[in-house]
Amino acid sequence: MTLKEISKFLGIDCKIDKEITGLNSLNDSNENELTFLENKKYINDLKNTKAGAILISNEYSKEIPENCIALICDEPYLALAKASKLFDPKLIETTGNESKIGKNSTIMQNVYLGKNSVIGDNCTIMHGSFIGDNVQIGNNTIIYPNVTIYRDCMVGNDCIIHSGTVIGSDGFGFANTKDGKYIKIYQNGNVIIGSDVEIGANCTIDRAVFKSTIIDDGVRIDNLVHIAHNCKIGKGCILVTQVGLSGSTTLHHYVVMGGQSATSGHLEIAPFTTIAARGGVTKSITEPKKSWAGFPLFEHKQWLRLQGKISNLLK
Amino acid sequence: MTLKEISKFLGIDCKIDKEITGLNSLNDSNENELTFLENKKYINDLKNTKAGAILISNEYSKEIPENCIALICDEPYLALAKASKLFDPKLIETTGNESKIGKNSTIMQNVYLGKNSVIGDNCTIMHGSFIGDNVQIGNNTIIYPNVTIYRDCMVGNDCIIHSGTVIGSDGFGFANTKDGKYIKIYQNGNVIIGSDVEIGANCTIDRAVFKSTIIDDGVRIDNLVHIAHNCKIGKGCILVTQVGLSGSTTLHHYVVMGGQSATSGHLEIAPFTTIAARGGVTKSITEPKKSWAGFPLFEHKQWLRLQGKISNLLK
Amino acid sequence: MTLKEISKFLGIDCKIDKEITGLNSLNDSNENELTFLENKKYINDLKNTKAGAILISNEYSKEIPENCIALICDEPYLALAKASKLFDPKLIETTGNESKIGKNSTIMQNVYLGKNSVIGDNCTIMHGSFIGDNVQIGNNTIIYPNVTIYRDCMVGNDCIIHSGTVIGSDGFGFANTKDGKYIKIYQNGNVIIGSDVEIGANCTIDRAVFKSTIIDDGVRIDNLVHIAHNCKIGKGCILVTQVGLSGSTTLHHYVVMGGQSATSGHLEIAPFTTIAARGGVTKSITEPKKSWAGFPLFEHKQWLRLQGKISNLLK
Repeated sequence: MTLKEISKFLGIDCKIDKEITGLNSLNDSNENELTFLENKKYINDLKNTKAGAILISNEYSKEIPENCIALICDEPYLALAKASKLFDPKLIETTGNESKIGKNSTIMQNVYLGKNSVIGDNCTIMHGSFIGDNVQIGNNTIIYPNVTIYRDCMVGNDCIIHSGTVIGSDGFGFANTKDGKYIKIYQNGNVIIGSDVEIGANCTIDRAVFKSTIIDDGVRIDNLVHIAHNCKIGKGCILVTQVGLSGSTTLHHYVVMGGQSATSGHLEIAPFTTIAARGGVTKSITEPKKSWAGFPLFEHKQWLRLQGKISNLLK
Repeated sequence: MTLKEISKFLGIDCKIDKEITGLNSLNDSNENELTFLENKKYINDLKNTKAGAILISNEYSKEIPENCIALICDEPYLALAKASKLFDPKLIETTGNESKIGKNSTIMQNVYLGKNSVIGDNCTIMHGSFIGDNVQIGNNTIIYPNVTIYRDCMVGNDCIIHSGTVIGSDGFGFANTKDGKYIKIYQNGNVIIGSDVEIGANCTIDRAVFKSTIIDDGVRIDNLVHIAHNCKIGKGCILVTQVGLSGSTTLHHYVVMGGQSATSGHLEIAPFTTIAARGGVTKSITEPKKSWAGFPLFEHKQWLRLQGKISNLLK
Repeated sequence: MTLKEISKFLGIDCKIDKEITGLNSLNDSNENELTFLENKKYINDLKNTKAGAILISNEYSKEIPENCIALICDEPYLALAKASKLFDPKLIETTGNESKIGKNSTIMQNVYLGKNSVIGDNCTIMHGSFIGDNVQIGNNTIIYPNVTIYRDCMVGNDCIIHSGTVIGSDGFGFANTKDGKYIKIYQNGNVIIGSDVEIGANCTIDRAVFKSTIIDDGVRIDNLVHIAHNCKIGKGCILVTQVGLSGSTTLHHYVVMGGQSATSGHLEIAPFTTIAARGGVTKSITEPKKSWAGFPLFEHKQWLRLQGKISNLLK
């Protein structure tokens, strides 16, 4: 799609044209991608962006780097939301190659395999599961019944995905209009799951808005866990039942999240951190190998001491 | 069904007969509906009921309005539970019209469309989804794979429902017998979802016991959210992941419920209220546009102050 | 399988041979089962075990009873994990009897019925549900659409299971290797559900690692509830939405767990206990008929008093 087509769709003036292949964040965009700046907080990232074009308010437009074309608008995030629809792939591909199925793999009846999807060797995909278009699944992977994997997602080798789990559903993203409407930000990224990952029943792992939600090798996920868009779950992490991770949470390797614990978004948790059951993480944790508990969060020992102090109030 | 048939089934004496079309609450019943009074708290509603008949203990039977026939019993709620079975519609209709499908709609294989159901134009209903009998779906609506919509529910235009979500499952209702059994209150209402609503993956929205659980236009619901029977979710509300709403919760327009927040039942939350993540609402909130947090709930600023005070206990 | 075959697979020396039919815990093993001792805490159970053989470290090997054969190893739990794979049944049986379906039962299209499974009389199993191999379902039971019941599970009479619920998925169990890998402990038990049980939508009930996860008669379970492996839910218990029970939790009869409440594992809760919404139970509750709230848990009245004291901190 050309930049002129996009700007025409958005009703924005644009003099220079260029081929645009997708949308992306300020930091990750390449010369053929369109980005945006809404939040002043990210203005320092502006000078280093490699984006081909940017949705930006007039106020900040002079600070954009050479080679990046400005699309001036009052509400860049809202404009991005509107533009995202242009890059939304088809719900169901009707053309393309039939899926490829490796040696010794069993695909039960009532399984849907999308166009251009590839299933490795020795896999079992059970009754009622949906494997969308352009999905890749490695070798020796088991998909239990009634799993849904949305288009473009990838699952590695030796994985087990239990029933009812949904991989690649849309992240929870929208921009507000002044008259109280929510404009969907189409989630055009995907989910990439490494090898030797086990995911319990009825979990939800949302696809990224741009690029990928990533579950690294060796991760273990219990039942009813929610992982939002653009999370990165490092190698060997353990997520116990009913954990909820907000968008763009990064867990470094071997983080353990206890049952019903949660994070707010856009934060990082250092390697080998343990969050006790019900812990609520609202800021990044930078020091590795520590244990935390509570909401607000305290170091686990401090939290235990604090509960002692609190119960003393009854005396 | 006639009142005599019902009272015979319940083993209650009844002299006057009347056609009864269903069960309903004290306030909402019409002259052809049967209601009940169990909880003294609602006795003031008794004099205004328009119900055709009422299950009621002898104690309160003299206060019922003219034209309302009393069915005297010791345990009216239990009697209601037993009667509810009489009005339970068929699990699966075997007669009736084939479903109607609008123009340009795509129904994938392995989708079930019930009798008398109507699908609008430009819809996509994906693999494995179940659309029960007498369901209505508007135009331009997308139902992702493995969604279940129970009979009699309605979904508006321009909606998106993600995989694994269940709409119209039975509300959690039963009456206790003296010997420790639970008698199911058949949930004979439905769910009505407005237009421009997006619902995430693996959510559950229960049907009403009487009338409708309502999700109004423009609502956005994240993954793994639970909405109990007879909730009313106002226009533009946002429910973040793992929210749990108890029965008969009313959210007025543009309420935001943070992740893992919850309500107890039978309460209202004023317009433009924000409940922070993990907030637990146990009483109605009447003043609009305020922010709340914690469990027990405090105004958000107070809650932050309180957390400061609590952490001072460690000094 | 013989003990020599198992020990060869594990690389453990074993002089005496014996037929071994399965794995089991120290207390429950019979003379043809292999057990393990990892945690010193259970050493008192060692002398009473009836197990035919035991994975055990050299340190404790002299304390095992006569007739129990020691398989000496440094990491018994890890060895158990590796051995568990040997007893994992087939994912999908391809031989065996066609399922038996009782009188007047309705099996909708797109339902999978596994080998050797038995469905009672007057049942309805709806579209998209998966009934695995060797599953038994009693009479008058309703399985709504898109339910998954894994192999070997049992459901009694007069049960209702709502859409999206998963019964018999693997418990969350694995042993750690020194180089940071998790070795799956195959969950070779099952789930047994009694009669007159209603289970809401999108719940997850994990199969036992050994023996059975048990849901007794008359239990009522709301939506999105998680029950981990080897839990025992007593007669008439009520679990409200989003409850999470950790592994080997025992609820005695008529326990009520409020919404979003939870337990840590390996504990018991006395009959007629009520846990308020959000309550977090971390120790066994031995006295029956009491109400508890909070996390940490207090008697409900004390918790209310404590909240008063806490809010006084704001003064």
